[in-house]
Amino acid sequence: MSAYDPENIFAKILRGEIPSTQVYEDDETLAFMDIMPRVDGHLLVIPKTPCRNVLDASPAQLEAVIRTVQKLAQASKLAFEADGVTIQQFNEAAGGQEVFHLHFHVLPRHEGVAPRAPGQMGDMEAIAAHAEKIRAAL
Amino acid sequence: MSAYDPENIFAKILRGEIPSTQVYEDDETLAFMDIMPRVDGHLLVIPKTPCRNVLDASPAQLEAVIRTVQKLAQASKLAFEADGVTIQQFNEAAGGQEVFHLHFHVLPRHEGVAPRAPGQMGDMEAIAAHAEKIRAAL
Repeated sequence: MSAYDPENIFAKILRGEIPSTQVYEDDETLAFMDIMPRVDGHLLVIPKTPCRNVLDASPAQLEAVIRTVQKLAQASKLAFEADGVTIQQFNEAAGGQEVFHLHFHVLPRHEGVAPRAPGQMGDMEAIAAHAEKIRAAL
Repeated sequence: MSAYDPENIFAKILRGEIPSTQVYEDDETLAFMDIMPRVDGHLLVIPKTPCRNVLDASPAQLEAVIRTVQKLAQASKLAFEADGVTIQQFNEAAGGQEVFHLHFHVLPRHEGVAPRAPGQMGDMEAIAAHAEKIRAAL
């Protein structure tokens, strides 16, 4: 496995070098909207400290992240009156990972609504509105 | 959200009422092979105590489960000389959940190999051999 690259885009988001639409933050974790949302409300949860993915994370990083994942799963279900939530976490390119800073995807889901195809940029105004709904539900 | 149903099949596995191909166990969690494996080595991690999914789990259940998920992600990557690992966790039917006891899917992945379609029973001898490889890697 490659070493952690501090120039990955989530590290830049954590350093404030590039913008993100944040919905939640605590001492150990940050949650922000995915800019290529597969469903309305698609968000990401990351640790504030560096690790590449689940394979090299510390137990403390994983525990903090999963607690925030739960908080955001509950809030996004409420915010979108969703019927369920899908959580995905990808490790290394073969596992689906594209940004090499540990992250969990949280997708509020509705019966009969398939996620959109991956890789499509979202509308930033819509994403901002979705973030506001999630913040209100927290 | 519905209440926890103690007759779900993972509860029956935990009570020893139906068989499973187990690969790891500690005081709080159990890992066993998925009988409809989407890739070779596809396994599930569950808490030993009841909860329906991430939406109603306790922080302690989630923390224990994610530690075991990490252990098994690392072991299954090693066992199958995999290039990556995909982790999935489904909440409620709309989120992809079929058995209503909290579980995480762990799928060792290889470059260029797409998962098989869901819902196909695996070959039990092959699953037993895959489990043995994972146990050896732990």
